[in-house]
Amino acid sequence: MDKGNVVLLDFWPSVYAMRVKIALEEKGVSYECRQEDFQAKSSLLLEMNPVYKKIPVLIHNGKPICESLNIVEYIDEVWNHKPYLLPSDPYNRSQAKFWGDYIDKHVYNIRRKIWLGKGKEQEESKKKFIECLKILEDELGEKPYYGGDDFGYVDLALIPFTCWFYTYETYGKLNMEEECPKLVVWGKRCMEKESVAKSLPHPHKIYDFASTRI
Amino acid sequence: MDKGNVVLLDFWPSVYAMRVKIALEEKGVSYECRQEDFQAKSSLLLEMNPVYKKIPVLIHNGKPICESLNIVEYIDEVWNHKPYLLPSDPYNRSQAKFWGDYIDKHVYNIRRKIWLGKGKEQEESKKKFIECLKILEDELGEKPYYGGDDFGYVDLALIPFTCWFYTYETYGKLNMEEECPKLVVWGKRCMEKESVAKSLPHPHKIYDFASTRI
Repeated sequence: MDKGNVVLLDFWPSVYAMRVKIALEEKGVSYECRQEDFQAKSSLLLEMNPVYKKIPVLIHNGKPICESLNIVEYIDEVWNHKPYLLPSDPYNRSQAKFWGDYIDKHVYNIRRKIWLGKGKEQEESKKKFIECLKILEDELGEKPYYGGDDFGYVDLALIPFTCWFYTYETYGKLNMEEECPKLVVWGKRCMEKESVAKSLPHPHKIYDFASTRI
Repeated sequence: MDKGNVVLLDFWPSVYAMRVKIALEEKGVSYECRQEDFQAKSSLLLEMNPVYKKIPVLIHNGKPICESLNIVEYIDEVWNHKPYLLPSDPYNRSQAKFWGDYIDKHVYNIRRKIWLGKGKEQEESKKKFIECLKILEDELGEKPYYGGDDFGYVDLALIPFTCWFYTYETYGKLNMEEECPKLVVWGKRCMEKESVAKSLPHPHKIYDFASTRI
């Protein structure tokens, strides 16, 4: 279904940009992916996201949409065919958005400190990170996906973090399989999907990138 | 339109709870409002929002919805008659949600430091707060409302902060009318709406409350 020109302003290790790539793959949308350089942001990025000056930005027919979960909702509404990313029932939608927001508010900030923090700060972050993931494991329960029988919005919001797990394990001396076994199994299940496998870089590539940022 | 039983777990000075009240008033939904005591949270609150243990929580036919803008979107979807809070066009929806999220990420955290911060921290917060409001003034432009000709989602997200302006002015030695004249005019325009006037406490009542919390 052609709905015009789609450009993604990307930075390949970004978990937020990965979400958008998965959503576009799920919907079968062809797009042009432009890598941004953080040392020298493009004038296009500054023009398209003047408030945050951050990727990802989806430019659809020349108009920008910012903030990853907002972009994912937009994609689901514009390419409004199956697979649906958000549930159609308002209550289930509200619960999916609650968990997407939870991941944004908690997982991202904590995980940076595992990788970049030192000593006590790092130890506290590890503890908080695992607590956070355990809450997310409880929410998954016995379902194959957060979306139930199908991969959906919350799966897409969380899965990009798993390609960073190797980095957290190495820097944080964590064993994710021991700490969050269900989440690791869920991650492997998601990786069997082509849309996910295509959008996530190899964990070693992420680790090499992270090592240059210490 | 009866859609069953609606209960709001509220705390009257909360800007977040005010958003939900405005949305319910806009849609003409009858609801029961229960005040929560922050010193002794009710077992109902702990049960309905186990993750954050915070108000507002909307309980619709026994099922909880948490996080204010998520609740507002839910209300707009369930009571899907006019006035619509979010635009129907996906692009305009994405822009409204972007600004709602901007307000949540920036205005709330900064404003606390004007009221509770001291010295340099307070001065920096004042500067950031005004910068933030100026970005929001730019977004309003010459429109009567953020929603265009009609009061909508972004108006509803921002307007509760205006009943705290008197408190910020007094504690922060700020003159909002001088700093953000357009926003003050917009605020007065919104207050002419019954849904808003009914949902916002008097600024002096907020100030009295704030004074007990220092």
